[in-house]
Amino acid sequence: MTITTIGLDADDTLWHNETLFRLTQDRFFSLLADQVEPGVTAARLAEVEQRNLRLYGYGVKVFTLSMIETAMELTAGRVDTSVIREILAAGRDMLAEPVEPLPGVEATLARLSETHRLVLITKGDLLHQEEKLAASGLGDLFVAVEIVSEKRAETYARVFDRHGTGADQALMCGNSMRSDILPALEAGAWAAHVPYPLTWAHEEAEAPVGHPRFGELANISQLPDWISRQMTSQKDSA
Amino acid sequence: MTITTIGLDADDTLWHNETLFRLTQDRFFSLLADQVEPGVTAARLAEVEQRNLRLYGYGVKVFTLSMIETAMELTAGRVDTSVIREILAAGRDMLAEPVEPLPGVEATLARLSETHRLVLITKGDLLHQEEKLAASGLGDLFVAVEIVSEKRAETYARVFDRHGTGADQALMCGNSMRSDILPALEAGAWAAHVPYPLTWAHEEAEAPVGHPRFGELANISQLPDWISRQMTSQKDSA
Repeated sequence: MTITTIGLDADDTLWHNETLFRLTQDRFFSLLADQVEPGVTAARLAEVEQRNLRLYGYGVKVFTLSMIETAMELTAGRVDTSVIREILAAGRDMLAEPVEPLPGVEATLARLSETHRLVLITKGDLLHQEEKLAASGLGDLFVAVEIVSEKRAETYARVFDRHGTGADQALMCGNSMRSDILPALEAGAWAAHVPYPLTWAHEEAEAPVGHPRFGELANISQLPDWISRQMTSQKDSA
Repeated sequence: MTITTIGLDADDTLWHNETLFRLTQDRFFSLLADQVEPGVTAARLAEVEQRNLRLYGYGVKVFTLSMIETAMELTAGRVDTSVIREILAAGRDMLAEPVEPLPGVEATLARLSETHRLVLITKGDLLHQEEKLAASGLGDLFVAVEIVSEKRAETYARVFDRHGTGADQALMCGNSMRSDILPALEAGAWAAHVPYPLTWAHEEAEAPVGHPRFGELANISQLPDWISRQMTSQKDSA
């Protein structure tokens, strides 16, 4: 048993993302605060996002549309157009936000890239994700980048077939139990969960505690050692 | 010299797209017609789209955002919120539009797929393009689908390396001179232009008349014969 290929999630695994969404949400709640309680706005925005996910997919553009729709719905269309203008500006500001790798990411990936094929596997807006990777300075560490519309078991099977030696010899590392961990395990890969302090409700799921290929790490810097331990314990049990 | 791999553009090559954008645009111009001349709206929308292309990329979501921004700018924010609501509905309607292959597409691709690797290469929204391909019923004819943020010479070189035997043994077929034909030729591939009656201004460019690997076809049904003729003339000149 060996691991040849490591898939890495991008948002909230390699760089901050949810924090930016939360800050923008707060800005949005304030915009409507004269007319609507922030808690009510929050609940309706979550509903609209869930509905739009199926229709539009992931990313800043659909988030911007979701905020506009939420404002329209909650005010029965009696929203000041300055609010719409502010929402559009908030969306553009998100795209312009600088991208900084999270602590430990750069050194860990540099080390792992010497021994493994690294593949970036992420959802979101195609152009925006490519731009964030370029801005992060991490692009050269990856042999391939796959921006996908959904992360399902078949997605991981296909990506690890294409860019590695199959899911059986691959590991997925990310912050989302629902998108990074569970479907990668289902595809037959290893999966290492590195939590981010904030999780979008849509990405929450139960941890597969006790699964022989699952690991829970406090920090991405622990990944190389965790991989070594997996290989050793596999040898022991072989 | 041989062609092992055929890249195919999707929108306006395999199915209608620009027609739907034009119909939605007309609907949008009517929404503002009380306040703004349709010609003025058209010109401003084209400007906003061009600006947003660099920021947001391609597809229905950015088109929806562009219509909202245009309405805000042209009315100095004094737009009725019912207009915003109508724009959001128009965007959703575009996503719900049924997908029908253009005449000759299905038979031609079925025939070519027996002798060549077919690869779909398209810009646009990730999720929406995947859904359109599924709805078209053509999905099984392709060995791979590449949804890309831009179509440059490097894009074609990369895709034809990954899914074929290099650009030198590949052909690109599409309706956009700017995105499908010129960069594919630059990458060293063959390129067959099949025009669509309408072209988005952003996609217009001069035809590379006289280029030895360029062909202008009236209909995609002519593609198999054109390929045969290219192979014969290559043999003659060898």
